[in-house]
Amino acid sequence: MTNALLDTIKFPSDLRKLTKDQLPKLAEELRAFIIDIVATKQGHLGASLGVVELTIALHYLFDTPKDLLVWDVGHQAYGHKILTGRKDVFHTNRQLDGISGFPKRDESEYDTFGVGHSSTSISAALGMAIASSLKGETEKQHIAVIGDASIASGMAFEALNHAGVSDANLLIILNDNAIGIDPSVGALKEYLTKVKADRSLAQNNIIKALNFDYSGPIDGHNFKSLLRELKRLKNKKGPKFLHVITTKGKGLSQAEKDQVTYHSPGQFDAKTGEIIPKNNEGLPPKYQDVFGETIVELARRNKKIIGITPAMLSGSSLKMMLEEFPKRTFDVGIAEQHAVTLAAGMATQGMIPFCNIYSTFIQRAYDQIIHDVALQNLPVIFCIDRAGLVGEDGATHHGVFDLAYMRAIPNMIVFAPRNEVELRNILYTSQMGLNQPIAIRYPRGRGVLIDWKKPFEIIEIGTGVCLQEGKDIAILSMGTIENNITKALEEFPNIAHYDMRFSKPLDEKLLHTVCTKFKQIVTLEEGVKKGGFGSGILEFIGEHDYKNKVTVLGIQDHFVEHGTIDELQKMNGIDVNSIKKKLRSLA
Amino acid sequence: MTNALLDTIKFPSDLRKLTKDQLPKLAEELRAFIIDIVATKQGHLGASLGVVELTIALHYLFDTPKDLLVWDVGHQAYGHKILTGRKDVFHTNRQLDGISGFPKRDESEYDTFGVGHSSTSISAALGMAIASSLKGETEKQHIAVIGDASIASGMAFEALNHAGVSDANLLIILNDNAIGIDPSVGALKEYLTKVKADRSLAQNNIIKALNFDYSGPIDGHNFKSLLRELKRLKNKKGPKFLHVITTKGKGLSQAEKDQVTYHSPGQFDAKTGEIIPKNNEGLPPKYQDVFGETIVELARRNKKIIGITPAMLSGSSLKMMLEEFPKRTFDVGIAEQHAVTLAAGMATQGMIPFCNIYSTFIQRAYDQIIHDVALQNLPVIFCIDRAGLVGEDGATHHGVFDLAYMRAIPNMIVFAPRNEVELRNILYTSQMGLNQPIAIRYPRGRGVLIDWKKPFEIIEIGTGVCLQEGKDIAILSMGTIENNITKALEEFPNIAHYDMRFSKPLDEKLLHTVCTKFKQIVTLEEGVKKGGFGSGILEFIGEHDYKNKVTVLGIQDHFVEHGTIDELQKMNGIDVNSIKKKLRSLA
Repeated sequence: MTNALLDTIKFPSDLRKLTKDQLPKLAEELRAFIIDIVATKQGHLGASLGVVELTIALHYLFDTPKDLLVWDVGHQAYGHKILTGRKDVFHTNRQLDGISGFPKRDESEYDTFGVGHSSTSISAALGMAIASSLKGETEKQHIAVIGDASIASGMAFEALNHAGVSDANLLIILNDNAIGIDPSVGALKEYLTKVKADRSLAQNNIIKALNFDYSGPIDGHNFKSLLRELKRLKNKKGPKFLHVITTKGKGLSQAEKDQVTYHSPGQFDAKTGEIIPKNNEGLPPKYQDVFGETIVELARRNKKIIGITPAMLSGSSLKMMLEEFPKRTFDVGIAEQHAVTLAAGMATQGMIPFCNIYSTFIQRAYDQIIHDVALQNLPVIFCIDRAGLVGEDGATHHGVFDLAYMRAIPNMIVFAPRNEVELRNILYTSQMGLNQPIAIRYPRGRGVLIDWKKPFEIIEIGTGVCLQEGKDIAILSMGTIENNITKALEEFPNIAHYDMRFSKPLDEKLLHTVCTKFKQIVTLEEGVKKGGFGSGILEFIGEHDYKNKVTVLGIQDHFVEHGTIDELQKMNGIDVNSIKKKLRSLA
Repeated sequence: MTNALLDTIKFPSDLRKLTKDQLPKLAEELRAFIIDIVATKQGHLGASLGVVELTIALHYLFDTPKDLLVWDVGHQAYGHKILTGRKDVFHTNRQLDGISGFPKRDESEYDTFGVGHSSTSISAALGMAIASSLKGETEKQHIAVIGDASIASGMAFEALNHAGVSDANLLIILNDNAIGIDPSVGALKEYLTKVKADRSLAQNNIIKALNFDYSGPIDGHNFKSLLRELKRLKNKKGPKFLHVITTKGKGLSQAEKDQVTYHSPGQFDAKTGEIIPKNNEGLPPKYQDVFGETIVELARRNKKIIGITPAMLSGSSLKMMLEEFPKRTFDVGIAEQHAVTLAAGMATQGMIPFCNIYSTFIQRAYDQIIHDVALQNLPVIFCIDRAGLVGEDGATHHGVFDLAYMRAIPNMIVFAPRNEVELRNILYTSQMGLNQPIAIRYPRGRGVLIDWKKPFEIIEIGTGVCLQEGKDIAILSMGTIENNITKALEEFPNIAHYDMRFSKPLDEKLLHTVCTKFKQIVTLEEGVKKGGFGSGILEFIGEHDYKNKVTVLGIQDHFVEHGTIDELQKMNGIDVNSIKKKLRSLA
């Protein structure tokens, strides 16, 4: 297939030169372009394929970038990026110094609001719309495109509740495909399903009840209905809501059928759609699977165990527990706040809830962790996946703040395993009955051990371990970054290495020994230095008036962009070579 | 009036011995009891008066504490406390070592879930209900009582969205009085108002759309309808929703009329209801009013200024701006997440949003601060009121984490004024055009200056000031705790005192001078020590390998209970006398 039409388009102004009849052909080309590049370069696939027609229609009819378009989450914005000046660099997607996998203000004036986390688009677009209104720009339109999984999140409801009583020029487009990353859940989703089946419900529905000019549902792959309805809405003032039905993965049959896998399929054959099998044989497991397999094993023995995740069922591998224990496993949708307080409620009744949330997303439940869990000292077990640098997802997704913000919370135990066995054992220890909450943070990706399914052992809370004896210099680490040190230390057999394991409570006995024995201490974590684990070591040293020279290594005080984890570690001076270099300078 | 009936009741089991006909008399006595005590001891009034009948009816019909009752927020739980074993100690409400002003698990088995922040009750009760269901306790009921302001918050919606598809024995009672602390706002509130006016809407409404067995609205002051409906619901399985209409302040005419003032009226005449006037003449202003008056002054000059608060209109004094600039002032309801991202959206369009949220509540928007504001480096101005210890509201409300969790965020400026002039000047400085976000944290209560309305002056970002020269020892402080030091230093004319003002960016030039000149450094903040301002000083000293002895003073690593601010400062070693004592030990 040639890209006869797509080749003519650099910006939406070029797109607007096409006739309406040419748009289906353009959609075909755009879809093929996305498939071709994602097939080799990887990235998010299904979501962008689902909104190809909608993307074209929006840029065709609205006066972007003057009219302001906000994509919720941004998984689905590849078509948008390609049509707004980034076609030629689209192959650099998610690479270091390449374009971001999500809309990003620095990258283009068409990216009006940076996204990555869900459910922000209505608030952001409403803020823009109110600003325009105050500036007298009454013709300007402000559009939020949001999926049915995202709109069910509390934050989106808060924005709807406000937007419904404003008179701002806001158009909310619900991109209803009944799936987020995993299939959507909840009462609202069931309701939307009914609306789609029985259009009479469209006349008197939840959205109308919230004061919106509701229209739809319409077919999001049909240009005729899309253009007609968008044209009508373009000229209407005030808050409007268009319900569009799309198919995630549209145009690639495998992606339509297996929407979960093709959300982000890795490499695949662009022609056939078949995923190119990876040879994972002999590789250590992913940490998420260590969690998933272990929780199933524990849940078999301990009936009190409950699994909860806010919409990270596949990504956290809690799906394994759902399959065996459907009544004790809860995907509550994109609802971090609710997930945490739900767990707190369960814990009051003697259950043992494991609440699995990615590090970057658990930021959404910070208050609930403090107010509902820690203040009441309820033994909720937080399994914080994707902690540390996450690589290609970039700045919106790195889980680098958790060590700092968790440490500030009284009653909270904070643990980071250095390998799979440690993760497995802390999960085991946690369900044996703690009297307080625990945060267990572990990274995206694979571990380091093949033979990790050892018999369970209790980990004593608040104890570190010595991994290498030494003199003069001791390195204290937290979590899987230990592996970088162990490699670096091959060159330094005389530098001691302690895995502190718990940033809270600190192993004070061990620390007294370390502070007494070593002149220099180096701390290392894959988290922000400001207020993090290293800062806790400084507090201990200050409190006890030790005089050790301390070097704190970790993430600098800046947001880290996208790239491979190795590249990003290097930029922050915590890869193997940087650690070696630093140690040479100290030794 | 005698308390003939109330005197017979220590626990709900006693209440259940009364006949239904006696309940209105009991309600009268309970109301009078609350009024009598709150009139002299102070506390929250209107909310508890509004639910007297509902409280009695719930404990009369349900088998509490076996049936689990969760009060949202807990402002309204005084009647509940009095009927559940705490009548004799109710006069100690909100005092150090007295009972808490909110339900609290440690205090009573009838307080099934600790509250204080809003909108947690549905999640908590649902968690309990699911736990009961898994334990086979299928007869048990789980009740959440939630107000119309709280149910409009995102977290409550997340819980409704989950509860609607569960089969747990959950009863949600919407206590609809059209007011939170300020009048309720938003599309849902307007909708509920319509439902009340037009009962035909009750047949096909939002709540039913979310799969609930909806009933109501019924009169929440009428025992007959309350008891009848609750009895019916008690025997129904699954998720149920009862819409009850009440009047906040019911039974005290002034409290019914002026619901905002009588939410927490201070001392008043129990007989007449008249508030006992305080003589505030000659007192310094409240910090909230310094904010309120200053933002109005600035908004007159600078059209780009917008004021936003999530339901803290009166408490933040943003109401002053609303009165003069209604189009530029937004109370978005209990919606911290939305408030922050709304502000971010406005900032992208060149507006200057001041987002005023209490310290304890802005925890709810931590992710939005990181992901929507700081990552995009948008110049949103966070005005964080009620920072530090708040006194009688207690553990759920102290704003002691902000210095720690804000410092971890790249791009964020963190400032704390030591007095009114500093607050005024930083507000002025912020609206002159920053290129990044700023968090300005200031306390509850009054300042220290009578003559605070000085001409505006720019504060240079990242600069501290020397308040007293000295030798050997330097104290570095952050915020209004400065006043304690200044008093303490009357005894120590040779100890230096620096108000660092910014915990981020730190005044590094000044710090180099301090570290070079003084042997000992004492840091002081009204915030948690773990990861806070003092920790930042330790990081600086560690980084530059200074060898000063550092003493970090602040809030210990525990949750602080209720009491006067003086009492609580003393418990944490940061009142004037504790500081003196510490300095004597160091000097």
